[in-house]
Parts: sequence; C-alpha cells; structure tokens
Amino acid sequence: MTDHIQFSPEQDALVLLDQRILPCREEYFVCKHNSDTIYALQTMVVRGAPAIGVTAAYGCYLAAGEVDGADSGWKAKLEGLLKDLEDARPTAVNLRWAVELMRKAWKALPELSLAQLRAKWLEMAKEIHAQDIEINKAMGRYGAELIDDGDTVMTHCNAGALATAGYGTALGVIRGAWEQGKKIQVIANETRPFLQGARLTAYELAKDDIPVKVACDNACALLMQRGMVQKVVVGADRIAANGDAANKIGTYGVALLAKHFGIPFYVAAPASTFDLDTPTGAGIPIEDRTPKEVTHVGEHQITPDNVGVFNYAFDVTPSELIAGIVTERGVIRAPYVENIRRIIGGE
Amino acid sequence: MTDHIQFSPEQDALVLLDQRILPCREEYFVCKHNSDTIYALQTMVVRGAPAIGVTAAYGCYLAAGEVDGADSGWKAKLEGLLKDLEDARPTAVNLRWAVELMRKAWKALPELSLAQLRAKWLEMAKEIHAQDIEINKAMGRYGAELIDDGDTVMTHCNAGALATAGYGTALGVIRGAWEQGKKIQVIANETRPFLQGARLTAYELAKDDIPVKVACDNACALLMQRGMVQKVVVGADRIAANGDAANKIGTYGVALLAKHFGIPFYVAAPASTFDLDTPTGAGIPIEDRTPKEVTHVGEHQITPDNVGVFNYAFDVTPSELIAGIVTERGVIRAPYVENIRRIIGGE
Repeated sequence: MTDHIQFSPEQDALVLLDQRILPCREEYFVCKHNSDTIYALQTMVVRGAPAIGVTAAYGCYLAAGEVDGADSGWKAKLEGLLKDLEDARPTAVNLRWAVELMRKAWKALPELSLAQLRAKWLEMAKEIHAQDIEINKAMGRYGAELIDDGDTVMTHCNAGALATAGYGTALGVIRGAWEQGKKIQVIANETRPFLQGARLTAYELAKDDIPVKVACDNACALLMQRGMVQKVVVGADRIAANGDAANKIGTYGVALLAKHFGIPFYVAAPASTFDLDTPTGAGIPIEDRTPKEVTHVGEHQITPDNVGVFNYAFDVTPSELIAGIVTERGVIRAPYVENIRRIIGGE
Repeated sequence: MTDHIQFSPEQDALVLLDQRILPCREEYFVCKHNSDTIYALQTMVVRGAPAIGVTAAYGCYLAAGEVDGADSGWKAKLEGLLKDLEDARPTAVNLRWAVELMRKAWKALPELSLAQLRAKWLEMAKEIHAQDIEINKAMGRYGAELIDDGDTVMTHCNAGALATAGYGTALGVIRGAWEQGKKIQVIANETRPFLQGARLTAYELAKDDIPVKVACDNACALLMQRGMVQKVVVGADRIAANGDAANKIGTYGVALLAKHFGIPFYVAAPASTFDLDTPTGAGIPIEDRTPKEVTHVGEHQITPDNVGVFNYAFDVTPSELIAGIVTERGVIRAPYVENIRRIIGGE
C-alpha cells in the first residue's frame, strides 16, 4: 500500500487517503494550500511520524505556491507559512525534520526564483517520498531477524504503510518477517482514542493477508500473562539522544507490561525520528488533543456532557524498557547514548 | 442513585435502568420472565457483581411465576429455570450466590406451595436488595479511611451505585471519603470495550457532584508517571480464597502499573463476592463475550469486516498486587489466605 500519499500533477495537489474514516470507507482528501496541509496533519487525515514528514515536504511545495514572486516580501511570507506548517503538531520530530530539510536547501541557494524553488522542493519531496519506502524496507530486513517463526507479535497504534510512505516501520518489521516465510500472527491493540490499531493496522495487514486480530488495549496484561505474545514492536514519533521514545499514548504501559512478563519490546523508526538535540524523553513535548476524540466515537457520544476528559496523545517509553531500536542503519541496542551517537549522529 | 433496580408490584416485574444506553438516554427494561432476566444479565442491561446478585434474586421470584403449581413436575421445571439463570454469566460469583441462597431457603422448607415459595422469594429478594445498600455503606465507611484529603483516585470499570443496589463498592469508598469532607478527585478509566467507566462511573459521580474526569485506558501509565494518581480502587466479580480478584478486563494491567509506580491498589467487594471453594485466581472462569462489543461502538464500526477480535471480559489480579480488600466486615490485608478464612469464612 503506497498510494495513500500521492502527488497529483493534474490537480497540482497532494491527495491523501483520509485515515479518519477508514476502515469502512476509502475517501481522499485533497491539499492545495498550506491551510489544507495543516488541517490534514492536525485532524489526522494523515498521521504517523514518517508519513507526517513526507506530507510536510509536499506541504512546503504547496506553501510556495501561495506566495507571489513579484511581491518583494515573498520570502518572509513563505517563511511564515513554513513556520505555521512545522507547528501543526508538536510531538513528531519528522515534521520539523522535513521542513528543515527544505529550508536548508533554500538557504543554500538564496538566489533561486520562487518558480525555481518550487520546482526544487517538488523534486525533493518526491525524493523523500520514494526514499521513505526504501528506508522502511531496510528496517524490515534488519528487524525481521528479531522475529521468530511462530511468534505472535503485538503492536500498538499504526506504524505501518499508512504511517509512512509505504511498507511501514513496526509493520515493516512484521512484513519483513512474513516475507521471509515466518508463520507469524499479529495482535493489533485497538489504540484508543483514535483507534489506529483497530482501524488502520487491522485494515492494512488484512489487505496483505497477514494474520491479525484486534484486542482492546485493556486486554494486554491478560494476553501476555497467557503466553499469547512473544514480541512487541511499535513505532516512534521522536527518539531522544538517550533512546527514550515518544509514541502513541499507551505504548509506555505496554512496555512496562512487556518488561514484567519478560517479552522483548522493540521500537522501529528511521534515523529522521531521532532528535539528538533532546537529551532525554523528559524534553519531548506531549500533544494534548481535542476532547472530542475521547468523548465521541464517530458521532456516537460515550461520556456525559458535563464531564471532562484527558487526551494526551503520546507517552514516552524510557530506553531501559527497549530491547532494541530498529533503524535503516541496523538495530541499535544499549548502551543507547553511545550507540545512537555513533549510528545516528555519525560520530 | 438507588432506583436503577426496582421491583414493580403493579407490573409484577423487575424494572431495570438500561445501562447499555447510558449516559445519553435513560430508558428502562422490564423483566417479567426468566428469559428476560437472563437476557438482561447477558447483554448487560444490568451488570456489576452485586447488582447481578440482586437481579438474580428477583429473577428467582420471576422464574417461580412461570411454572404451574398444579403441574406435578413444577419443582423440576423450576430447578431447570434456576439453573439457566445461574449460568447466564460465568465470572461473577454473586449470581450463583444469590440463586443458591434462594435454593437453600426452598430446600429448607420443601413443603411450601408454589404460591408460598414465590411470596418467600420476593421477600428475600427485597431483603437482599435493601441489605446490599447497607453493606456498601459499611464498605464506604471502612474504605474511606484509606483515602487521604486531596487524593486523586483512579477507578476502572464501574463499581458504583449502578453496579450494586446503590452507593457502590469502589465508588462507595469514594463516596465515603467525599462524605467525610475529603477534597478528592476521580479518574474514571473509560474501560473498553463496554465503556463502563466513560458511560456509567462518569455519569453517577457527576450526578453526585464528585469531581471526575475520564481517561482512555491507554493513559494510565502516563497519568501515574506524572504523579496524577494517589490511589486506585476497583471492584471485583469474584475473589478466590487466596485473595486473587477477578475484575473487568484491564484491571490486572492497572494493578501492575500501580505496583510499578508505588501507588496503593485496593479492591472493594462484599463478602458475597468471595468464593472460598476456588483456591486461587487460576480457577476463576473468564467470560469470552461477543465480538460486536469490540468491533462496534454503538452502531459505529471500528474494525474491518474480515478481522477477528479478542473480547475476554475479565482478568485476575494476583493478591500480591492488592494493598487491601475493603469489605463490609473491615479491610482485609495480607496474609490473605488466613485473613480471608477468618473474616469471610468465619473461622
């Protein structure tokens, strides 16, 4: 599944499979303006750290289409749009990574006309898009070695094709093992409140005929206690320099339970997810999202009108709970500070 | 809130507030026949171990209205109906406890006519109903001592007025502390899949103006990590002789996380919840319920059509994770085998 993020030359637009309404309907959302891209990111038409990065790259191109090169202030206006775009969501570092990549290319070539800059950015966005799939496949090859024939692998949220340009990070590891012929099964935690596991992970694995069952997040301890889980593999939205990994709310609880039951817990994320400027997980901002994601499922209201809710969207799993971090450069293991510096920081 | 289980002499029926459709609508379900009572128990029109016990007691009376005293086989037919009733749900021991209480009263007075037996059972059911409220208030008084002024108390599922004849077990402890003037707050875990926390705990605490917020079950580790939870109090559906406590799916995970974060975890349950014939939690049957509770929220479908789900309705928290069990006879602490035998077994 690689067609959920498409650039349409005819429409001069980014066309996104609307992940808010999967799995029952497949509809597309068209981004033509910076405000469309920001809306798509904020409401989670598209989500998943690498997919957010790819979307943001095209978003820079769309933003550049909104300023007028004849206007002497176009550079400041465009920089303002980029700033709005990179602030669309706080936790996933890939958003800032992609915008920063585009910004650096621009700063390196300040003489470019707006038209030349747009052409360059479109080319770069397409490259990031294509590379992401290759990166995921590389992660899949490294990660597959961690999975044994016959394993049942639990995953939380959706770190799959739909969270990337295609193939997936955590689900890339699962696809890698499956393609090696290992007879594995997947338990997709449903992942309240946005239900990425129930809706998206189940949808894309079933499309690939990889055996998958959905469990309420509440079932985790019981399933592990019964010996029904051999490995846990999840994605990440930002990884600090010490290996602490921010991921969808609930991941930290799964990691603590996995530790209790002696089940290896792995994170799969590309190098672009690492934020070496953030020393530990304590420095990663946690997005606090709209109550409506908790109070309603579709249009169905599940809490009383006058009662407040919590909707922290992420938590941070300390690196001591992580058996290994699968990247496109290999599997990073403890001691994380040194190994991340060496493998990701290039030192 | 004590009117959610009512006996109506006019209708000669048990009238139940339909908990499947709270909190947005308040509708009542009328039980006139044994099949109505069984349906109400199985589909969770009424749920919660003590409320199941009270319902089953009235259910015996309704069952007795369905056989014909002029039929020489009425006793065997009635026994068949009682058997069906006590098999309606497997985990909560209060169901069998109530039916067995009625059965014993009958066996002790075998000469009773059917009409006399019905009259006796109605009287007994009303007594069980009234006593349950008193029992909960006694638990509330004992349990309140465990809660400190300023605490935020997390609870899972609904062990409240709606799960009992009124006042509640875990929520009885919270009400007891609140009535002592302690400024407490409650975090209600939403409790997928049936959402008893989001729908029922939030509803009844808000009605009593006790501060409550709903959290997705996934938020538990983060909230505990941030120091936002000082105590956990939950109910139970069956407690084995060694203190292992079956409760709503997810409770075991909450208990393990509470242990990790050093947060005291309490169970509140009346003596009728103890099953001294079951030595440990391993002997407690875990109900496996319909997939539809997981695949749909209201009529809103959240999983793909062709994907299976797990819907184990309970898990068992080992007694070593439990700081104390609040009963109407006082708070039972470790060593549980001896103390349960003494306080519950009357030895």
